[in-house]
Amino acid sequence: MERIPVAVLGSTGMVGQWFVRLLASHPWFELTALAASDRSAGKPYREAVRWIFPEEIPERVGGLPVVAPEPDLPARIVFSALPGEVAGPIEEEFAQSGYVVSSNARSHRYDPDVPLVVAEVNPDHLALVELQRKRRGWKGFIVTGGNCSTVQLVLALEPLRRRFGVEAAVVTTMQALSGAGFSGVPGNAILDNVLPYIPGEEEKLAREPRKIWGRMTPQGIEEAGVRISAHCHRVATLDGHLEAVSVKLSRPATEGELVEALEAFRGRPQQLGLPSAPAQPILVRHEPDRPQPRLDRYAGGGMSVVVGRIRPCSVLDWRLEILGHNTVRGAAGGAILNAELVVAEGLL
Amino acid sequence: MERIPVAVLGSTGMVGQWFVRLLASHPWFELTALAASDRSAGKPYREAVRWIFPEEIPERVGGLPVVAPEPDLPARIVFSALPGEVAGPIEEEFAQSGYVVSSNARSHRYDPDVPLVVAEVNPDHLALVELQRKRRGWKGFIVTGGNCSTVQLVLALEPLRRRFGVEAAVVTTMQALSGAGFSGVPGNAILDNVLPYIPGEEEKLAREPRKIWGRMTPQGIEEAGVRISAHCHRVATLDGHLEAVSVKLSRPATEGELVEALEAFRGRPQQLGLPSAPAQPILVRHEPDRPQPRLDRYAGGGMSVVVGRIRPCSVLDWRLEILGHNTVRGAAGGAILNAELVVAEGLL
Amino acid sequence: MERIPVAVLGSTGMVGQWFVRLLASHPWFELTALAASDRSAGKPYREAVRWIFPEEIPERVGGLPVVAPEPDLPARIVFSALPGEVAGPIEEEFAQSGYVVSSNARSHRYDPDVPLVVAEVNPDHLALVELQRKRRGWKGFIVTGGNCSTVQLVLALEPLRRRFGVEAAVVTTMQALSGAGFSGVPGNAILDNVLPYIPGEEEKLAREPRKIWGRMTPQGIEEAGVRISAHCHRVATLDGHLEAVSVKLSRPATEGELVEALEAFRGRPQQLGLPSAPAQPILVRHEPDRPQPRLDRYAGGGMSVVVGRIRPCSVLDWRLEILGHNTVRGAAGGAILNAELVVAEGLL
Amino acid sequence: MERIPVAVLGSTGMVGQWFVRLLASHPWFELTALAASDRSAGKPYREAVRWIFPEEIPERVGGLPVVAPEPDLPARIVFSALPGEVAGPIEEEFAQSGYVVSSNARSHRYDPDVPLVVAEVNPDHLALVELQRKRRGWKGFIVTGGNCSTVQLVLALEPLRRRFGVEAAVVTTMQALSGAGFSGVPGNAILDNVLPYIPGEEEKLAREPRKIWGRMTPQGIEEAGVRISAHCHRVATLDGHLEAVSVKLSRPATEGELVEALEAFRGRPQQLGLPSAPAQPILVRHEPDRPQPRLDRYAGGGMSVVVGRIRPCSVLDWRLEILGHNTVRGAAGGAILNAELVVAEGLL
Repeated sequence: MERIPVAVLGSTGMVGQWFVRLLASHPWFELTALAASDRSAGKPYREAVRWIFPEEIPERVGGLPVVAPEPDLPARIVFSALPGEVAGPIEEEFAQSGYVVSSNARSHRYDPDVPLVVAEVNPDHLALVELQRKRRGWKGFIVTGGNCSTVQLVLALEPLRRRFGVEAAVVTTMQALSGAGFSGVPGNAILDNVLPYIPGEEEKLAREPRKIWGRMTPQGIEEAGVRISAHCHRVATLDGHLEAVSVKLSRPATEGELVEALEAFRGRPQQLGLPSAPAQPILVRHEPDRPQPRLDRYAGGGMSVVVGRIRPCSVLDWRLEILGHNTVRGAAGGAILNAELVVAEGLL
Repeated sequence: MERIPVAVLGSTGMVGQWFVRLLASHPWFELTALAASDRSAGKPYREAVRWIFPEEIPERVGGLPVVAPEPDLPARIVFSALPGEVAGPIEEEFAQSGYVVSSNARSHRYDPDVPLVVAEVNPDHLALVELQRKRRGWKGFIVTGGNCSTVQLVLALEPLRRRFGVEAAVVTTMQALSGAGFSGVPGNAILDNVLPYIPGEEEKLAREPRKIWGRMTPQGIEEAGVRISAHCHRVATLDGHLEAVSVKLSRPATEGELVEALEAFRGRPQQLGLPSAPAQPILVRHEPDRPQPRLDRYAGGGMSVVVGRIRPCSVLDWRLEILGHNTVRGAAGGAILNAELVVAEGLL
Repeated sequence: MERIPVAVLGSTGMVGQWFVRLLASHPWFELTALAASDRSAGKPYREAVRWIFPEEIPERVGGLPVVAPEPDLPARIVFSALPGEVAGPIEEEFAQSGYVVSSNARSHRYDPDVPLVVAEVNPDHLALVELQRKRRGWKGFIVTGGNCSTVQLVLALEPLRRRFGVEAAVVTTMQALSGAGFSGVPGNAILDNVLPYIPGEEEKLAREPRKIWGRMTPQGIEEAGVRISAHCHRVATLDGHLEAVSVKLSRPATEGELVEALEAFRGRPQQLGLPSAPAQPILVRHEPDRPQPRLDRYAGGGMSVVVGRIRPCSVLDWRLEILGHNTVRGAAGGAILNAELVVAEGLL
Repeated sequence: MERIPVAVLGSTGMVGQWFVRLLASHPWFELTALAASDRSAGKPYREAVRWIFPEEIPERVGGLPVVAPEPDLPARIVFSALPGEVAGPIEEEFAQSGYVVSSNARSHRYDPDVPLVVAEVNPDHLALVELQRKRRGWKGFIVTGGNCSTVQLVLALEPLRRRFGVEAAVVTTMQALSGAGFSGVPGNAILDNVLPYIPGEEEKLAREPRKIWGRMTPQGIEEAGVRISAHCHRVATLDGHLEAVSVKLSRPATEGELVEALEAFRGRPQQLGLPSAPAQPILVRHEPDRPQPRLDRYAGGGMSVVVGRIRPCSVLDWRLEILGHNTVRGAAGGAILNAELVVAEGLL
């Protein structure tokens, strides 16, 4: 099979590098163009980037010239790791010009005609792209993934929502440094410390699940009524967001039923056998002290979420811990999975 | 005024050293004896201890010989920093022999006739010691302080409880390494990691507030019905437990009323002008990113708790962050304050 | 005594804040003006600064308006915490206008007519300011302090140099994050890591001691021939640079003589009783595992250096460990001590 | 080919687990027995061990019963990860009973008839085992590997020694937490800190290279005269020892010659194609800020050492940085490579 040419926008940042790493040997996609801000433009990628991974930059990719993020790239799909402040109009230009944009930026997440997709959870929302194209008169379209903290939360709770209903949750996050970008959190700020605030994060956690879990109707998404109350923190870990969750279900469940629902869960990506889909989206650990960020973040190649410490809650119904790899499942890996879904569903 | 002779049991451990540091220049108490396990007995304190503080061991104290924890110490009050596994019977021997035991150990916290006191919250529970002495035929008695995570929680919520009632709370703790003792958490376990489990901690957070907030009756404490659902974590900080709290009140409140209640709060220690009582037990920070463990743990000399990020909760009523110094307010400092209260109330 | 009005240039950065903290209650100096880049100008200091210390900004200082770094400040001495890239011309303007500039920046350190002073080591180099004024036609003058790593090295080795001669040293530094400024080292870069490179640092460590230890002559400084070979690293500590040193002396010494020389050392600041002079500039620790950054950085209020692990070297002569507080002794505190020396020597 | 049955002594500790991990799918060796202290004996390995790695315990191995370290194990080679305090006599028993013991413990390293081998450096020292067997009347024998800090140092310097001679070196180590075992360094000790002392380590670094670089004679090893002066530190990294080295060569060299010698170096393991031999034992990085522990420790699967920052030294001849994986190349991996060498050389 001929591979589909793809490009990365914002390719020198932390999430951009994850895209490059994950796409370098992708079975369906061929990385043909790397875009970044003007400063880097013209240089070979290996000179433009401050590569963060232990292994070398893939040979072929390192030699690609960095280009400006303009819609003349030799690609059909573009992955956007652009900063939220600039992503909006650039992504629109690409979609208008016929590209499929799989975005990790927040800019269009809440647009009523742009799907906000966690591939195992609401693949049916891709149907929105018809509406999007029609309304905007675009040849291409934009698909967005959720905020990193949201993605792992809705994925882990999805089996419970399907079987027992999820009404509300109190979520306390302990988020890794990589979530703020490479230079986002100074060492001076975080050593021997916890930062109890991440701008905008709690609002995203409250809002995005309502759309992701919303009902697809001919007029668009009808938002879910779920209430998520979040307390967001930055802690001194490199990768892997940990979330302590108290959840209120609509119907009673036993611990055994919860474990069974979580472990048995498979979604559309697993049915379709998408290349980036983990065999098991949700892993349950039974030790008392798991999941831990350092030990569990690479479960399923960073695409599975790990759930542990399932126990009753005296205030809501159940307590549990959820861990996900924020820059893989919660960012680049999730956007690649979304693009695979787009292809498999015949939307390219 | 002649100072009251006091001793420390378990004086070489981390909490023991905090007792020594805080008592070395106490206006009411004179440190006259240091006890520790047999291994150290006989040596001068400065040779027996692996001193954890930057400043030198106070000269006079460094020369005190370490003795066995037997009830023949030249003291009237003994502070117990003994490990929970051994504290029980030793503390009983001391109380029986006429000493006032102000304990930081968990052993007797739940005994119906032993007061579990946070000095600003339930000073009236000291009345239990009459019952204790009568029932047990002791000349002395035992007073206990709460678990470090509990102390800062009930102290910070006390003004809300008094004004608006506290029905329930979901509490996620991010606890410092010192809470586990000096060697309690290996560097290998915590670097680039969070541990989502502290044995016994969630149970203590559920149980202790019910007793502390209980009603004193002639027959003993009538436990409060409050429900605390805790998620406890160990993070890479040296001192200062951070708690993210969602709380359900009995009556509606505005943010302004909450802030006012917290800042205006004073307790019996402040009325009595106890030496270790912070002028203001609860400080409210208004910056979006406070409290932080490294910046706020020494508020009020480590005896105040710091509250911040007060904001509505869509699931319960209010969200807030609470920070306290676990080895000062949550351990040694709290036990010293309890002893001061005992003295000031004429119970010695 | 009327206090001398002083100003701080670059007052919102990390070293600038240290100046503010240390000057807020200085017995000789009164902080009358705070300058910073245009962005902050006009705001009260407490709004312009991201204050890094646990305690509050001193009340009076917090209300001072931040002004531009132009030579019309109501002060006689200005402390410069300006970044090296911009400090040069600004400091010159101030000196020309009659201010005494005590600088922490590197810009003028190597000018032949600008003294590079570590107050206990080469106070006689202040004589250079006559030359400086004459040559440049300035009313004021510039005095510089050394790079943080240099200051603690030359101070700790000074007694050995005086008694036994210092010919060469191999120095490996393990430097704290604060040395790079608040945002200088991303948490992502340093967690679970050591960075074996600090731009320009090894060159400074090679060059500055040659000037500081140079001989004052009527024509200027005659540089010393000492050879310092440095290996510089950034490690995950907040404050306090640790240096592992192998040193070659000109004459044989015993361990006892070295310890005696270090502990007995006093310099001109101690003779003059300068307010910021530590009683004992060099402390020797005899435990096998000291000095340690976290335990020893605040020795002498951060103005002493701590030496330990003195033992023979099979390649050069002696091995030892040196620790100093980089932002106190190695930056703001050192520059204040230099200004005190200027005043005490009648050069103001 | 039939695989050779092997056992691990001390299999539940940190180095023991590395042996298990590396041997689980070894092409020549089959892990048939796991020994550990009496406490664990009898339990299946997966219950006896506190597994430190992210991935699961290899299925087959997890079920092996833990047995006592007595010389009746169904194996021909035993790998010893026993603590130095107990390893001596146990290893002797095994060797006497006919086993080949490849040890990571320090107990027999300095025995004149026991080879201390870094496989690329002194494979000819294996000839000592003849002497060892004869003298002691053993059927088997003991081969030891060096201390982790030594191994990477002598390996990195070996090409320089061969081409230019190595007379002396000043070495400052920044060693990872894993080098002290899982619980060896408390989080409370190392967070925001550097420990400038590791018991016995500097002596090992001075002594072991003299034996490893010694000349094999019919009477035994004639020690080399090289002088290594070490300054050893523990820093907050998980794995990977970093060493800052100033080295004195016997003959002049250019930087280009040094790089060429390092990169071209191959040893006996590479010639023999041993399974654990990295293709290139020494990698040279040319960026100014490499090697870094977190980025470079897994070079060559943890079996290569990485050298960088080669630059002149004004005191000795050259400065360079060396990084090696302390628990792979410096412990378990090195001992496995030694055993492969034993097999390949026909000594089993």
